Order: sequence, then C-alpha cells, then structure tokens
Amino acid sequence: MKITLAQLNYHTGNFATNNKIIIDAINLAKLEGSELIVFSELAVCGYPPRDFLEFKDFILQCESSIVQIAKHCEGIAAIVGSPSVNPKIEGKDLYNSAYFLADGEIKKVVHKTLLPNYDVFDEYRYFEPNREFAVIEYKDLKIALTICEDLWNLNENPMYINCPMDELIKQNPNCIINIAASPFSKVQIETRQQVLQNNAIKYKLPLFYVNHIGAQTQLIFDGGSCVLNANGEIINELKYFEEEIKNFDLSIENNKLKILNCNEIFLTETKLPDKYKDLESALELGIKEYFRKQGFSKAILGLSGGIDSALVLYLAAKALGPENVKAVMLPSQFSSKHSIDDSLALAKNLHVAHEIISIEETFNALQLSLKKQFEGLPFDIAEENMQSRTRAVILMAMANKFGYILLNTSNKSELAVGYGTLYGDMCGGLSVIGDLYKTEVFELCEYINSNEEIIPKNILTKEPSAELRPNQKDSDSLPDYDLLDKILFHYIEERKGPQEIIAFGFDETIVKRILKMVNSNEWKRLQAPPVLRVSSKSFGFGRRLPIVAKYLN
Amino acid sequence: MKITLAQLNYHTGNFATNNKIIIDAINLAKLEGSELIVFSELAVCGYPPRDFLEFKDFILQCESSIVQIAKHCEGIAAIVGSPSVNPKIEGKDLYNSAYFLADGEIKKVVHKTLLPNYDVFDEYRYFEPNREFAVIEYKDLKIALTICEDLWNLNENPMYINCPMDELIKQNPNCIINIAASPFSKVQIETRQQVLQNNAIKYKLPLFYVNHIGAQTQLIFDGGSCVLNANGEIINELKYFEEEIKNFDLSIENNKLKILNCNEIFLTETKLPDKYKDLESALELGIKEYFRKQGFSKAILGLSGGIDSALVLYLAAKALGPENVKAVMLPSQFSSKHSIDDSLALAKNLHVAHEIISIEETFNALQLSLKKQFEGLPFDIAEENMQSRTRAVILMAMANKFGYILLNTSNKSELAVGYGTLYGDMCGGLSVIGDLYKTEVFELCEYINSNEEIIPKNILTKEPSAELRPNQKDSDSLPDYDLLDKILFHYIEERKGPQEIIAFGFDETIVKRILKMVNSNEWKRLQAPPVLRVSSKSFGFGRRLPIVAKYLN
Repeated sequence: MKITLAQLNYHTGNFATNNKIIIDAINLAKLEGSELIVFSELAVCGYPPRDFLEFKDFILQCESSIVQIAKHCEGIAAIVGSPSVNPKIEGKDLYNSAYFLADGEIKKVVHKTLLPNYDVFDEYRYFEPNREFAVIEYKDLKIALTICEDLWNLNENPMYINCPMDELIKQNPNCIINIAASPFSKVQIETRQQVLQNNAIKYKLPLFYVNHIGAQTQLIFDGGSCVLNANGEIINELKYFEEEIKNFDLSIENNKLKILNCNEIFLTETKLPDKYKDLESALELGIKEYFRKQGFSKAILGLSGGIDSALVLYLAAKALGPENVKAVMLPSQFSSKHSIDDSLALAKNLHVAHEIISIEETFNALQLSLKKQFEGLPFDIAEENMQSRTRAVILMAMANKFGYILLNTSNKSELAVGYGTLYGDMCGGLSVIGDLYKTEVFELCEYINSNEEIIPKNILTKEPSAELRPNQKDSDSLPDYDLLDKILFHYIEERKGPQEIIAFGFDETIVKRILKMVNSNEWKRLQAPPVLRVSSKSFGFGRRLPIVAKYLN
Repeated sequence: MKITLAQLNYHTGNFATNNKIIIDAINLAKLEGSELIVFSELAVCGYPPRDFLEFKDFILQCESSIVQIAKHCEGIAAIVGSPSVNPKIEGKDLYNSAYFLADGEIKKVVHKTLLPNYDVFDEYRYFEPNREFAVIEYKDLKIALTICEDLWNLNENPMYINCPMDELIKQNPNCIINIAASPFSKVQIETRQQVLQNNAIKYKLPLFYVNHIGAQTQLIFDGGSCVLNANGEIINELKYFEEEIKNFDLSIENNKLKILNCNEIFLTETKLPDKYKDLESALELGIKEYFRKQGFSKAILGLSGGIDSALVLYLAAKALGPENVKAVMLPSQFSSKHSIDDSLALAKNLHVAHEIISIEETFNALQLSLKKQFEGLPFDIAEENMQSRTRAVILMAMANKFGYILLNTSNKSELAVGYGTLYGDMCGGLSVIGDLYKTEVFELCEYINSNEEIIPKNILTKEPSAELRPNQKDSDSLPDYDLLDKILFHYIEERKGPQEIIAFGFDETIVKRILKMVNSNEWKRLQAPPVLRVSSKSFGFGRRLPIVAKYLN
C-alpha cells in the first residue's frame, strides 16, 4: 500500500485557500494510487489560530471544511488536523483533533492528549486534553495516531504525568503517525529528530511525521517531515523550508509494517544541522511569508551604515527580490561620511534602490519648537531620541505614501538591554533580526560573505555606533558584545538567575547591571514589533514578563 | 477566636516590601489577639509574577520569604499565598500554593486545583494542578482552604471536570477560606459576589475571602475581600480600591462556625454596583500604581481639545495630583481655535500646567525633506500621520528631558478599528482609557461633570475630529459611535461572529466592514501601550490574535 505525507503551507483563518490545497493534494495522491494521505496539525485553520478559536463562527468553518474535505476521500483515506467540539458539558469546549476521513465521511476523531502551554504555546487556553485511547484500524494499518506534543514527554523531567503512546501501544499498533506544528529554532531540528527517534526506538514502531511549513508572523515552520523505521532511523525526510508531497510504499505482514522504497541509503540524506544556512533560510521565509500573507510586496528600511541594517537589507532583498526593497539613508550632523559611503556600496551590491533624506532640517525645526522648554539644558538622551524618531517619521511617511512595510533592524542584544529608541529605531512592522544577538549578526554576515564580499567589509569591521552625538560608540554604554551576549544567553534562553550566572565566572557588577537593564526595559519591548523567532526563547509572546515589577532591577 | 483578613497591595517581585507588609500585618493581628491571619494568592511575590516563575532564583526568594514569615507566626497562624516546588518528577515544576504557617514553621501546603488559563490568565503555563484534598485542622477550625479559581466551577458549562470543594466537603470542614487574585472589571464585582454566594449556599458553610488590592500594569485589583455566612449572605466586606486589615470574632460549637461581630445589618453595607464611580476609582488606581511601582511621579500628555485627552487629563490629575501633570497643546494649521481654547479652559479647571508647542515648523521641515520623493502626489494619510507622529516626537522629547511618562489617550473604539496613528497618537507608557469605548468615554465624562462643569461642555458636545486635514470628522471614516460600539462589543467582549451579529438586526455591510477593520489592525495593536483593563475583554495580553491571518478581513 501507498501512504502520502503532505507538508503544506497554510494561512491562518484562510479556509478557502487551506481547503483548496488540502483537496488538491488528496486528488493528486489518489491519482498516484495512494491509500492514505496525512496532513499536519490544525491544517484546516492554520497554526496557531490563537483566540480565533473562541469564535463559534471560526469553529463552524473548521467543521464545514472537514465535511467538504471528507467528500473527496473516496478511494483514499486522509488524516487532517482541525479543532473539534467537545460534546461533554464539563471541560474546555474544544479538542485539538486529527480527523480520520474515508469513504466520503468522518470515520473517527482522535484528540491531542498533551497540550503544550509554555513559551509560544497556549494550547490549554483552548483545548481539553484527551483521556481516551484507541488505535485506528484501516486496511492492514493499525495506527497509533498522535498529535505533535503527544510524543514529547520522553525525558528525565517530564512535563506531563502521562504518555499517550504508553496507552496506545497496549492495542498493538503497527505504526505511529504524528501530525505536528513544530516551529523552527536554531536547536529545534536536532531536538525534534532526537524526540522522534526516541519514540520509534521505545515503541519499536515505524513513525510517519508530518510538520507544517511556512511562517505565521513570528513563528517559522521549517517542515522536515520524515519517516523513521522501527529501529529509530530516519529513512527519509521531506524538504526543509519548502512545501512537498511525498509517497511511500509499504508492506504489512503479520502486523509488521515495512517501508519498501526507502532503504538505509536514505540515512545519509537526513538533514545535518547547518546553523547559518538554516538561519538564513528561516529568516528569509519569515520575511517572505509576512508580506505575502498580508498581501504586501514591498519593504522599506533605514540604512545606517551599521551591520544590523545591512543584514536586514540583504535578507529582505533575497526574500522579496531587490526590486521590491527600498533603502533609505537618513544622515544627520553626527553621521560619519563612511556611513553613507558604506550604505551606498551595499545597496549597489544588492541592486537595491536607495534614497538619501537628511534629517537635519527636521531635527533643527524640532529643537527650535522646543527652544523655550529646553532653554539652558544640556544636549542629552532627549535630543538623541529626537533624531532616531525623526528618522522613523520619515520612513513611516515613505511607507504610508508608497505602500511599503517598514522593516525593523534591532538586534536581540539591544532589545534586551533597551539600547534603542522606542518610536525611533524600534519601529517597524516586523523585526527581522530581533532574535539574533549582536555576535550572531556578525557571524551570519561573515557566513553571507564567505564566497564574495556582499556586505562591504568596512561595515563588518567598524566599531558599532548609534551616531546620535559626536563620537558616540556602543561601547560607551554597553559591555563588549562578546561578554554581553553570553550573559544575556544565560539569562534569557537558560533562565539562570544572577547567582548562577556569576557562578559561571562572570563579574558580579556586570551581571547585575545587565540583568537590571533587561528587566527595566520590559516596557519598551512590549511595544516592539513582532520578532521572527529563531531561538528557543525569543522576545515577544513566548516571553511574558511583568512591567511594573521590581525584581533584579 | 479571632480571624484577620489582610487585603494588601503587593509589588510583583519586590520581596523586601512584600515581606515587610506581611510581617507587619501579622504583628498587628497578634497585638489585637487574632489567632489566624489570611493573606491573598501569591502574596509573597505579587500577582501575576508571569515568567519570573521560570527562574529558580525567583522561586528560592519565594521560599525564603515563607521561612522568614513563618518565624513571626508564634501565637498566631497565617495563610500565605506563594508558589511552591512540585517534589514529583512528573508534571510541571511548581504549584500555586497556600502555606499554612504556625508555631514558627510551615505546617501544611495546599495547592490550587483549578488553574485559570483564559483571557489574562496563564496559570497552566507554570503550575501543576492539585489532585489531593485535605482540610486543615487548627484549634476548632476545620478549614476547606481553596485558591481563587477553585471556587469558580459552579456553572452550567463548567470549564473544569472537577470541583475541589466537592472533595473537601467530604471531610466535614466548618468554613471555606479562599485566597484570591481576582482583577477588577466593570462586571466582576457582581460576578464575584455571586460566585462566592453560590459556594456558601451549596456547601452550607461560612466563607472568608481575601483578594488583592492594587494594580500591576494592566490588571487592577479592587479588593472587596469579604465574609459570608452559611446562608450565602455577605455579612461584611473590606474596602474596594484600598488596603484594609480587618478582624472577625468567631465562635465554634459542634463544628458549627458563627461570626459574632457581624449581623444582618452589615448586609446593607455590601457594595452595590456603581458603574462610573467604580470605573473612575479603578482607572485612577491603575494610573497611580503604574507610576508609583515604577518609581515615577510625573505624567505628560497631549491635549487635543477632544474628549479622550480631556478625560485622561482629569484622571491623571486626580491620580497623581495636578502639580505632577503637564498638558501640552500641539496645534497645527488644521487645528480649530476652539481646540486650544477648550484645552486651556480644561487645564485651568484642573489646575494643571500647560505648554503650547506648535508642530507647524516641524511638519513643514518634514514636507520639505520629502519634497523630492512626494513631488506631485496628493496630501493623504502619509501627511496626516506625519502630523500625529510629530506630536509624539515632541511629547516624547519632553518626557525624556524632564522625566515624565507619556500617557496615551486612545479609546477602545479607535484601537479596535485602527483609527489612530501608530508611533503617533498611539504612543505612551500606559493607555488609560484604551478599554473604554467612545460612548463610555462620553458617559464617564458626563458622570464627572454631574455636579459641576469640570470638563468644559464644548469638549463634550463638539463633533469628534482628528484635525489632520481641513474639516475632518471621525464620521467621515467611521459609523456613528453608538452603532460602532454596539457591534464592537458583540465582537470583542462576546466573541460573536458576523452571522450572529447580523442576526441581532445590524446591517450586514456595516458589520462586515467593522469586523474587517478590527482584524486588519491587529498589527497596530501589537505595538500599542499596555491598557488598563476594566472590561471582561481588553486589548493586550488577554486577547491574543494572529497578525498575518486571513479571517473576516
């Protein structure tokens, strides 16, 4: 028999489009003689649907999609993710479900047991956990059908008190199918492969895994759907960062399932971690999808002559095409000549159009307007921020006039310590590199330049500066980025406290100063643009901290 | 015996302060001969601690606070809310607990069973639910000790599959104690009283209820701790919007508990809903606490001559004192004369200092800078937004120079439909009236003016206008606020879909247009300031929607 894995790109709430791509895939699989096609978690509505799940209208549209899709399941079965209504009065009103469709109708509905409710996940906000377990029998298949997190409880400090596969295995299934919505992070591909392998090994069963591909604002889904044999070897993988539909031939004898057209040779094709290439692919997909799914095509951004905006320009040009990107240089009396020259060289390398718009006149007009109020007071952070905000006003005026989306160029280090101007350089519809520490920005640029000098070398070697007062350098206000980023990583990604970080050998004064800066700037980050998430802990809705708190600050 | 209810104002993460007010209250209660003092949910760390709970250091500080507090519990027992560590390997690492302290030590720890994970609540993100039930015996008391949500499952469509009081009642307790962190909303006081009454009646037990008071950024805790008799009558209430510590004399005979110093006369003192007075108190507390807990005292805001900024100025002056508030008028060539005159009259009535800073020169300089790019193009939304953003740059410059926090003046109607300029009038550290529909803004202003004309009548009667182009009126772009707000309420608070709203008798075209506006502006609201929450569904972290989705838009 033939089974098809469909790794597709859904658009949250766009039922018409999602239905169409699901039904098209079913028809294609039928033509190719497949007997079962598997789609990913919450495919009909896209993932994450978030509070749309609280609207009865939204759930009705999910149900109606399932009915329409089921009609196409004649001569083929399909497993499709969708929310479903909990018929019981007690408990939450919904389940996160996998529909088993065959003979033109709904044959069975399996619910998710383990509901992730950490980091960016809020599933217990909407769904009741499953408490009943039954394998699905279809032809010779006996499927242990699970949904994403259901396989993620095999570790030394399990987050859940039960393990759905421990229940299902009692019914003697001959394979595991897992439908997922597992977002990318720099460590996720390896972690995910490991989790799937551990399950195949523990339960001695082949495993079919189908993930989302595509991005939904902050979350980037990298695909990488795969098939494992009962030894826990990944014998085939679908593409990363691209849609793919793939068939697998099986044989089942004495309730033993074998995958025929995959042999051990495939093992060498399994994806190996490729940090910077993956990072670049993820960020480009994140940009592309943010624009496409909002119906925009053109981006604008301010080029400062520094490395952050250079990297964002490079990524935007690759994601949207250089013809769809506009670079704007916004010099002031404090801008170095090299800032313009380097920016011009970069725009030229990338074939991106540019404008040069001075902020001097506007900055002077602002100072004149505030002359009476600021009389006799020294130039300080107020004037620095005024420049940054003037740039934002001009960039947003261009965006509003011509239909661009402004891309934000803040990095994770500066977002962390609040080294940025709210309503100034913190503006933008999307933060492209807000989940990359400054040191990672440098590393990624060096990777990009590894074959040819795309980003002018001078941009990579100059000392970072906001250029908001004469001879300003980042190092006037911040520790070296090497040191800063290490401490930030311990605090943000690893959630280590001050004593634990100091115990790693860092200076107490610096550690406490940095943690205080992070916690004191929560109010700024609350108003930051959505950040493309590429780490295990990104700023945004996966990191939720109080604002008026008094802890370490 | 005497029991003390301590309704106090905690500061999230501020262990030193929280410990001090808890220990001071214990010592006071001891002096007054009390044998048990009850504090609210998560008192030691403040509510909500959010992701601080993921830091071991934070939990260690909670534990150390409990040990310090326990030392003061000699001759008196105390019930104190705190996170506690789950000793089991399986499940989440923490419980949301109530410590029972006596004889200088921890006698017992009771865990919360029902973990709210909807709207602004994220408790299942951190806590494992309790599954074991035991009443606490102390002297003649047999306490069914519960934590907030534990009592909130008595309705026709219960969110949880179990009810902790149904377990505890089997052990024959003689009272219920509930420690809570229940935030204010316009409907919450009545709902909360009803829930407590239903519990006392169902279980035929007197009930002691202790709530938080104070505000934590968006959430306003209104207090209203109370005591109910076994008939479900609220026989005494603590203050609303203020701290209070109150003693109650009890007698216990044959496991029947009676409250001695409260009789039926107290019934008349129970709080009745007083919509506008409560709303005013809540918003003032919200402002006051946001400033105090961040160590700021002074606010600035732009006065447009319209009703929204007028209301915010009034509330800020009351919350912070008129001497701590600065009003700034920022006229342009499109400002009416009455805008300045009305603003001056308002500032005078409120004894608030003001500045007049024209934006004309800066707006002209910006237009000049963009002359080449905008050549030949008509005046449009780009120029409108430029004016609004110029005002924000000036207000933020004043804030940065003098240490003000900028107050945002957007209302819920305009936040909903995106009728505001991001990085312009949407700026501010705190959105004061972002949870009040425009019609509610009018109503609250009329209430404020009910005795004397504090807000000049002309501000209340003029037609709303953004004054960003000649003769602009809100009604050019939006339906009448009466109609708009009704449809928004059905959509936002009630989560009704288009068909349901149309079925109420609203015009289909208008309904669809409004819902499309709401959903298309999610990206703007993501970058809006935190909103003081006064409704059952406020914009902010209690309403979580995708940005790049395609649903109703």
